[in-house]
Amino acid sequence: MPQKRPTIYDVAQAAGVSKSLVSLVLQDSPKVGEESRRAVREAIAELGYRPSRAAANLAAGRTRVVGVLIDDYTNLWFVDLVRGLHASLGPAGYRLSVVDIATDDQAEDPVDQFLSMRVDGMVVGTDPPGALAGAGLPPVVVVGTREVPASENRYDVVANDDAEGGRLVARHLVGLGHRRLGHIAVASGAGRARRAAFESEARSGGAQVISTGEARGATDRAGYDGARELLDADPGITALFAANDVLAVGALAAARDVGREVPGDLSVVGYDDTSLAAARLVGLTTVDDLSFEVGRRAGASLLDRMRGGAADPVRVQLQPVLTVRGTTAAPRP
Amino acid sequence: MPQKRPTIYDVAQAAGVSKSLVSLVLQDSPKVGEESRRAVREAIAELGYRPSRAAANLAAGRTRVVGVLIDDYTNLWFVDLVRGLHASLGPAGYRLSVVDIATDDQAEDPVDQFLSMRVDGMVVGTDPPGALAGAGLPPVVVVGTREVPASENRYDVVANDDAEGGRLVARHLVGLGHRRLGHIAVASGAGRARRAAFESEARSGGAQVISTGEARGATDRAGYDGARELLDADPGITALFAANDVLAVGALAAARDVGREVPGDLSVVGYDDTSLAAARLVGLTTVDDLSFEVGRRAGASLLDRMRGGAADPVRVQLQPVLTVRGTTAAPRP
Repeated sequence: MPQKRPTIYDVAQAAGVSKSLVSLVLQDSPKVGEESRRAVREAIAELGYRPSRAAANLAAGRTRVVGVLIDDYTNLWFVDLVRGLHASLGPAGYRLSVVDIATDDQAEDPVDQFLSMRVDGMVVGTDPPGALAGAGLPPVVVVGTREVPASENRYDVVANDDAEGGRLVARHLVGLGHRRLGHIAVASGAGRARRAAFESEARSGGAQVISTGEARGATDRAGYDGARELLDADPGITALFAANDVLAVGALAAARDVGREVPGDLSVVGYDDTSLAAARLVGLTTVDDLSFEVGRRAGASLLDRMRGGAADPVRVQLQPVLTVRGTTAAPRP
Repeated sequence: MPQKRPTIYDVAQAAGVSKSLVSLVLQDSPKVGEESRRAVREAIAELGYRPSRAAANLAAGRTRVVGVLIDDYTNLWFVDLVRGLHASLGPAGYRLSVVDIATDDQAEDPVDQFLSMRVDGMVVGTDPPGALAGAGLPPVVVVGTREVPASENRYDVVANDDAEGGRLVARHLVGLGHRRLGHIAVASGAGRARRAAFESEARSGGAQVISTGEARGATDRAGYDGARELLDADPGITALFAANDVLAVGALAAARDVGREVPGDLSVVGYDDTSLAAARLVGLTTVDDLSFEVGRRAGASLLDRMRGGAADPVRVQLQPVLTVRGTTAAPRP
């Protein structure tokens, strides 16, 4: 059964010193003599005392927790985002709580969880589940290109330019000499921006593009099936652009299974530059969506809001960068 | 700036009906006439009203949130765990907040975050950072084989039998005819249990084993470097067992780079049976550590504690299962 959590008073009592002296030891003050310091440290160890930020925050009516809402833990896009958020929010004393909507049965509103936890701010990294329309939320920042109703345009947005990312891929493939391209599409605001710009840029470069229907989320199977569908429909396709890295890795397996060598017989490109794309076994050409920097900027923006800053919504758009690895090359003549 | 969150009273007023009638509409009661129903729904949409579980929970002094502490979001071992926890805690109205210690700069105690959030319970899926020694925690369940000081044996533990998992791998490889094995080790309680049992079982089956030093965490690079080190040290090795799937995928890249075909020239086995192992491009032989079931049982156990149940610590150990895919075969004669 849990015991009562020891307080600074318990430590002072056990060490036979005053509470102020315990505070000085905790601050590593040079004013404390060696003997008192040792007595306090022994008491801390013995009692298992931990200085509690939690208690101070609760007393102040705040939690110093920021909720981060994402699609699916298996799509590692979010990891650099979280690291970037931590880089700006951590030093200000905020911690992050990550919740994915894929685990959820969707019977309840995931935003309600954050409200239950009394988060001081929210980061929305998925197409909002409708709930943001409600009033009374803490400060919110939207990360990534999301499809939000006009009523929610009051939130700050930090994103990479997904349309520019789609164009980068089209130019890379057309520049290598590919003229028949396939696209594995995904049902999301970011996915649609990538697709539209990719198709348009490829066509204006003189290439043909066919696209799959929109996959529901980022799964290996959807990438595999999408690639098989495209290569069956048009065996003349020499390059595939998948809307994210997870789909692209599924596409690599499909290429292997139909006997297309990558990159000699087929080029494959992903999006997000996740740790999956960077794995030495995969070595995927992809678009770096600068998730760390998106997170860092989003965290700074949220911090400003939580401190009562700027009233007008902030819009930040970062320029993505193509990361060329081993899965793209010129088509065989 | 945030507006006041609309209440059920605001909805009733806007629709020109009573609060009870709004409640009936929310419950989809057949007692409500079509016209009133439409008026209430319009008012809900217009105001952005959401029925709040959060408010009720806060009033009751609880959050209905369970904190889940893990090592690193990039090691997808935790995903099935979280799904399993949700399967038992979700229907009881609890939600999960996942925090990894890899994002953290470790300057502060991650357990303090959960206390700040006033979680109703905690799931510890990493070697505890020492903080659990403190008293005053909410109910805790430890998942996985963790190195905990004797003082913390008061917590419930649900884990797969990592020693048995290590033996399963040894028997599989020795049974295929491998006699010189390498192991890529990791610094964790689970990793040490896997290694010790693997080495012992392999040796009693007549095989030689050499192991790397312990990798700090599950990274592609550590797996790659570990495999290179082992194959350099003893080119006669015909099979590698990596302590988790992430390391094993790094090892697969190393095998490719030194010209060893998998599985013909080298067998590779991982542990955890994550979505990475199951990806069609990877198809890794691994040990299914039943993370979903571990999560489901851990959730049930925690639920019991949060309701004030059983005083004695519960110990549950599940039997892991070998999942044979395409990365293991008999050594070439």
